[in-house]
Amino acid sequence: MYRNLRIVPYLIFGRGSYAQLGDVLKPRRTGSPVVFMVDDVHKGKPFISRLPMEGKGLLLFVNVDVEPKTKYVDELTAQVRTLSSRQPDALVGIGGGSTMDIAKAVSVMLTNPGSSADYQGWDLVKHAAVYHVGLPTLAGTGAEVSRTAVLTGPVRKLGINSDYTPFDQIILDPDLLEGAPADQRFYTAMDSYIHGAEALRGTFINEYSRAYAETSMDLCREVFLEDLDVAVADEKLMIASYFGGLSIAYSQVGVCHALGYGLSYVLGVRHGIGNCIIFNHLEGYYPVEVREFRDMAAKHNIPLPREMTRGLGEHQMSEMIRVALSLDLLWQNALGPDWKKIMTPEKARDLYLRM
Amino acid sequence: MYRNLRIVPYLIFGRGSYAQLGDVLKPRRTGSPVVFMVDDVHKGKPFISRLPMEGKGLLLFVNVDVEPKTKYVDELTAQVRTLSSRQPDALVGIGGGSTMDIAKAVSVMLTNPGSSADYQGWDLVKHAAVYHVGLPTLAGTGAEVSRTAVLTGPVRKLGINSDYTPFDQIILDPDLLEGAPADQRFYTAMDSYIHGAEALRGTFINEYSRAYAETSMDLCREVFLEDLDVAVADEKLMIASYFGGLSIAYSQVGVCHALGYGLSYVLGVRHGIGNCIIFNHLEGYYPVEVREFRDMAAKHNIPLPREMTRGLGEHQMSEMIRVALSLDLLWQNALGPDWKKIMTPEKARDLYLRM
Repeated sequence: MYRNLRIVPYLIFGRGSYAQLGDVLKPRRTGSPVVFMVDDVHKGKPFISRLPMEGKGLLLFVNVDVEPKTKYVDELTAQVRTLSSRQPDALVGIGGGSTMDIAKAVSVMLTNPGSSADYQGWDLVKHAAVYHVGLPTLAGTGAEVSRTAVLTGPVRKLGINSDYTPFDQIILDPDLLEGAPADQRFYTAMDSYIHGAEALRGTFINEYSRAYAETSMDLCREVFLEDLDVAVADEKLMIASYFGGLSIAYSQVGVCHALGYGLSYVLGVRHGIGNCIIFNHLEGYYPVEVREFRDMAAKHNIPLPREMTRGLGEHQMSEMIRVALSLDLLWQNALGPDWKKIMTPEKARDLYLRM
Repeated sequence: MYRNLRIVPYLIFGRGSYAQLGDVLKPRRTGSPVVFMVDDVHKGKPFISRLPMEGKGLLLFVNVDVEPKTKYVDELTAQVRTLSSRQPDALVGIGGGSTMDIAKAVSVMLTNPGSSADYQGWDLVKHAAVYHVGLPTLAGTGAEVSRTAVLTGPVRKLGINSDYTPFDQIILDPDLLEGAPADQRFYTAMDSYIHGAEALRGTFINEYSRAYAETSMDLCREVFLEDLDVAVADEKLMIASYFGGLSIAYSQVGVCHALGYGLSYVLGVRHGIGNCIIFNHLEGYYPVEVREFRDMAAKHNIPLPREMTRGLGEHQMSEMIRVALSLDLLWQNALGPDWKKIMTPEKARDLYLRM
């Protein structure tokens, strides 16, 4: 029994394609509002003034200084409901992976009852989401194409995985990547590199995932090991992210992401940098890839924080291990069906203590 | 202004995934027939007896000894209408690129008035097609993912290009590739190799198309220049075809396909072998790729017919040139906006005379 992949059915790629957002929304407009959710780091940027706000446009800046929480998604959903008695004609998310995931989650929650925490898991969503469009301003997470909206809830960090979660349309405009700090650009890009490594070394791999994963990693190599013009590099990064997202659609992430979920649940470490911190210690699982990752970081003078877990209390450490080891599918992919014999709580603790 | 790519929104990949066709159709069944259009070379094969024919299944074998014609599509559409007064719940196409294109075209014609010849061109289709599913049994054409259904009409060979043309679902089961004759397998696979070459050497190329084209060509190289197990090779070919189709979604084909349209319009040469015959003479346009193509053909002892145009009358030759040079977009991609100064009717004639 193979998964029936849900693939984002409309895609525009190209510099300046942001200008086509108005055209994309036009056939959706029935007189209800269109909601724009934009990462608040973009406040005041010129592209904001070019948002197609005609009719009842609602602009909400979202804050993603911390990773998205189910509580925040519920608040934003309530806010949209308060601002408009009618269901929006569309919801547009503009930002990095966190903003993408918030936009996806709110689109789902506008048409489904209860709290977003109720839908963390697989295929729990019952009703089709509000039509939603994604425009990434960071490249690497693959959130623009993934079937999940990763949220931190009261008891776990886990995505809303459903056929209704993915965007109905994405616009991949490399111009929107400009201005991101070099560190953040690197950490986020490495998410797709790590997706590729985890897919290729995983037990779930097939030729579909392999083709996407290898190409995504090749693009990262070109960008961070060769000396490309930054304009070309950004275009390649955008495709690396898209391909990285598709590579795990048919496989799974692995050791790094599983440990990363624990780290970010307990310490609130952002996904991109968290992955980089962890991956740096995973030579045992991804030997070639970790060496190459270090070369890329070194070439671009990217700091890799250490001693993240120093002085951590026992309760926090246990929580971190609990969250990481709860991700059965990720460990199955990484280490096979008998993963529990390999990745014991002691082994996970040992890995965390090195970080 | 960038194209808004329509991408097949559901995909299943894997050996034996054919068995999931029944599950895929289940939510679509309302009591109307489901139409199965299957290439008649598959008559009597075991998988036919496993078609999910429950309820009102209609099995139509289609003949693609010649390339699909608008007249044939119109006849099949009429046949479906005669067999059922109600619109089918779904239409399933199982076969090579021609069968895929017929299934796509009939799905469109069931909901649109007139002849399929009226819709040859770009975005002429007004009404959504009947829900349609594609299962390729040959890999290379990319017809499983393309936005076109290529048909030979009374005045031209040209596709029905529209957002309603692509399949709603594809099932890529490498088991279905088994049993194809070695020559046909090669000729068809080379379609995706040539798609890659034409995309990469074309002027419309962007990083999206580049990533798909390079990966598709790499997969063809693995399959035909290395010594892979045939089972793995078929899996890779299936992805090469899918990626090749996506590579031209955002660019265009080029010299080989333009000349191929002329060749097949006048001589009825099948698309796959026609491309191979022509590509073999295009060193001037795709030098490295043509050499590599010859290596692949030689390694697998694939004959490349010659002297196709020997003894051709002047009327036929003029028609061939007319059809080939009418494909403005393809030539623009291959040779730039001033292509008419480069690819004159004399030059096209010269190329055809070599074949």
